[in-house]
Amino acid sequence: MIAPRPTGERIVVVGAGAFGTALACVVARHGDAPVTLLARDAAKASQIAATRCNAAYLPGVILPDTIAVTHAPEIIADATIVLLAVPAQAQGLAARQLSCHLGASTAVVICAKGMERESDRFLSAVVADSVARDRIAVLSGPGFAADIAKGLPTAMTLAAHDMAMADRLAVALWGPTFRLYASDDVTGVEIGGALKNVLAIASGIVEGAGLGESARAALIARGLSEMARFAVAHGGHAATLSGLSGLGDLVLTATSRQSRNMRFGLALGEGQNSAALAGAGQPLCEGALTAPVAVRLAQARGIDMPIAGAVADIIGGRMSIEAAMSALMARPLRDEAETSVATARRET
Amino acid sequence: MIAPRPTGERIVVVGAGAFGTALACVVARHGDAPVTLLARDAAKASQIAATRCNAAYLPGVILPDTIAVTHAPEIIADATIVLLAVPAQAQGLAARQLSCHLGASTAVVICAKGMERESDRFLSAVVADSVARDRIAVLSGPGFAADIAKGLPTAMTLAAHDMAMADRLAVALWGPTFRLYASDDVTGVEIGGALKNVLAIASGIVEGAGLGESARAALIARGLSEMARFAVAHGGHAATLSGLSGLGDLVLTATSRQSRNMRFGLALGEGQNSAALAGAGQPLCEGALTAPVAVRLAQARGIDMPIAGAVADIIGGRMSIEAAMSALMARPLRDEAETSVATARRET
Repeated sequence: MIAPRPTGERIVVVGAGAFGTALACVVARHGDAPVTLLARDAAKASQIAATRCNAAYLPGVILPDTIAVTHAPEIIADATIVLLAVPAQAQGLAARQLSCHLGASTAVVICAKGMERESDRFLSAVVADSVARDRIAVLSGPGFAADIAKGLPTAMTLAAHDMAMADRLAVALWGPTFRLYASDDVTGVEIGGALKNVLAIASGIVEGAGLGESARAALIARGLSEMARFAVAHGGHAATLSGLSGLGDLVLTATSRQSRNMRFGLALGEGQNSAALAGAGQPLCEGALTAPVAVRLAQARGIDMPIAGAVADIIGGRMSIEAAMSALMARPLRDEAETSVATARRET
Repeated sequence: MIAPRPTGERIVVVGAGAFGTALACVVARHGDAPVTLLARDAAKASQIAATRCNAAYLPGVILPDTIAVTHAPEIIADATIVLLAVPAQAQGLAARQLSCHLGASTAVVICAKGMERESDRFLSAVVADSVARDRIAVLSGPGFAADIAKGLPTAMTLAAHDMAMADRLAVALWGPTFRLYASDDVTGVEIGGALKNVLAIASGIVEGAGLGESARAALIARGLSEMARFAVAHGGHAATLSGLSGLGDLVLTATSRQSRNMRFGLALGEGQNSAALAGAGQPLCEGALTAPVAVRLAQARGIDMPIAGAVADIIGGRMSIEAAMSALMARPLRDEAETSVATARRET
């Protein structure tokens, strides 16, 4: 293990859910920077501080002694890096509420994956209402909170509009079991993170409907094309979507039952009703919120998104699973580089 | 369902293993062409013909009545399309033995994934010893025999050097549950099919060693880059590797315990010995045979293949699992488009 060098950073993680707690643990374990975990309310902060464990979200993980836990947002004033680890739909509000405490050069890292359904915007645009664009970064890629917290090897992407900022953040947060690769493709990285949740629902539907692993693999290959098409149309790079934060995260989320999005799709594929699933006290999974936003953005730019469209229609109650199967599996792979004219002939 | 049109083809499937039997079933079920299954020996042919079931390889699947079963290789003389569904290392011998019966314009479709270890060659080059290059095609992509045979939806790629030939074959073999996309990138398609087996072993090792699903997803993302690099250096197209026969098949094989290659890696990752696994009466899985060939071909052209190299070294007994973990997980993602200079700095 390489001895950490002092970076002079002071890190505050906002949000004591599973991902925020895992990030605080891994950063505190590897780095030299002081780490504070900022919980929403006093009771939760006291409970975590007293037990050194976030039993509700990360049972079995002991927080390093060096992590301070608080519920006082003023701590932000002292931070050089803020990790915004609240849910995607809460990122805008959190950024607004914290912005009055933010120092002039503090970096704000979006640690959530999705699109804001209220405004049909990417999270970096939402946070930019309250934080200067050149201080915003995005952390994304294939990393389950439990894997990160346990110290299993994970590799993720850290993107900022300015590569020097991305590098600085990668150095500050990096550890031997938590490998961060810097990128300046904020758009590509956040689109990969948002759309893979939608595709994970589709993957779950295919599995839940009993169509087999071969069908699921074909769907994932098509899904990557769909993600890349959407990203390139919005100014992202295709190569980003083929990397960790695109393909890597898609594979993780679309093949694992640890993923809430995948499990939601599984329940739909098994015939459960979307409205009933949403009504069971659980908030909708992120992919279910992102799907209609992605479809509206795609329609506005004329981007073909058959899989996201089918997911949005199923969740919205406008399409049956049976009809979706044909939309998801039976239509030609237009984007397969060498779509067969022969096959197209036979289908018409 | 679309009514099949007469294509005038006569199809012989060579090899009554799981994949050959599944192909015979799906083609006979959907198409109008007469289908014959050619088994290696008389006893096996009689048994399948009598029971209409290949109990050893595809238990529970009933062969359509229209499939003829024989062990007489002369039947090849009557075929317009021959599907070579024998194991990768047996493709050369099968092509040689059958070539004397082959009609002048009969198409020969390679239905195996691997590289010939005796000659360090791709299968299309091996078969070209006995069959004219313009009559050779390759069927590859994400399709487990059991899924194909059960009529679950599958999508695969059919490649020939000449696109008209690929189209003709896709029409003849296509069915509503068995979607075939034509390609003229024979090299890209066969490299994807061969290398995904090697990467599936790596994926199994990571899982067997308990490194978690996040690590496995990162490995798969890196593995796709490695496959694409190798393919492009050999004249294949990068887009082919991002499609069904590359990424699609990689995802299927590297995440499913139905895959022998993945299970072999799993056993290695759990600490079992490669020599002992091979000695247990089972032939080595295809990826274990392909890995050293791929490494030799890569070295000859100066292509960086860290994952295939680690797999070959583990199987060859030259590297421990512990050392491999660092080779597989800890080295920089050089091919991640935006490899962080910061991370590189920290590691040196």
